[in-house]
Amino acid sequence: MSENNEALLFESLRLELRRGSLILAVLASLRREQYGYSLRVALGEVGVEMEESTLYPLLRRLESQGLLDSEWREEERRKKRFYRLSPRGEAMLERLATEWRGLSASLEKML
Amino acid sequence: MSENNEALLFESLRLELRRGSLILAVLASLRREQYGYSLRVALGEVGVEMEESTLYPLLRRLESQGLLDSEWREEERRKKRFYRLSPRGEAMLERLATEWRGLSASLEKML
Repeated sequence: MSENNEALLFESLRLELRRGSLILAVLASLRREQYGYSLRVALGEVGVEMEESTLYPLLRRLESQGLLDSEWREEERRKKRFYRLSPRGEAMLERLATEWRGLSASLEKML
Repeated sequence: MSENNEALLFESLRLELRRGSLILAVLASLRREQYGYSLRVALGEVGVEMEESTLYPLLRRLESQGLLDSEWREEERRKKRFYRLSPRGEAMLERLATEWRGLSASLEKML
């Protein structure tokens, strides 16, 4: 297997591993209202790097699923879309966090 | 939003959250040789429940990706397919485990 294939396989498994966690990280961050850029910075500060091309579609998807509320507002003379967790999103975050803690404890034991 | 939709949404987000972790759990378990049933039992014992319909296709996929080796062998008068981590799988497990520890520490901080 070539090094290039190895790198591609790692990248695809890494994405699969991250995907679910990213959703959880975004929901948890949005307990406090944020716009796209401030959210990316906040995620980056705790070590969760996300491309804009991943984050923005995810925000729209989570909003369409009713987990986020958003509104356009002007701040520093620019219109920005602010997101925050909806009540439905809060309930879902709590359930997913419980699920994640269980998984995490299991993996901790195995690794 | 109806309770039924809520349950379906939770289930789909839960699957997304679990998917990557399940791969990691399977790879970690297969540092020791197992056949399908004994692997399911071993995973169940550490709290990672997996349906046969999820586990068996995942084993075949990981083998086709070169991360597992397998062989048919008779044990207790039945032919069973035994799986274990390949050298390539060991290297991949190590990289994914590092990735997972980083994600896990980040989520721990946020939740």
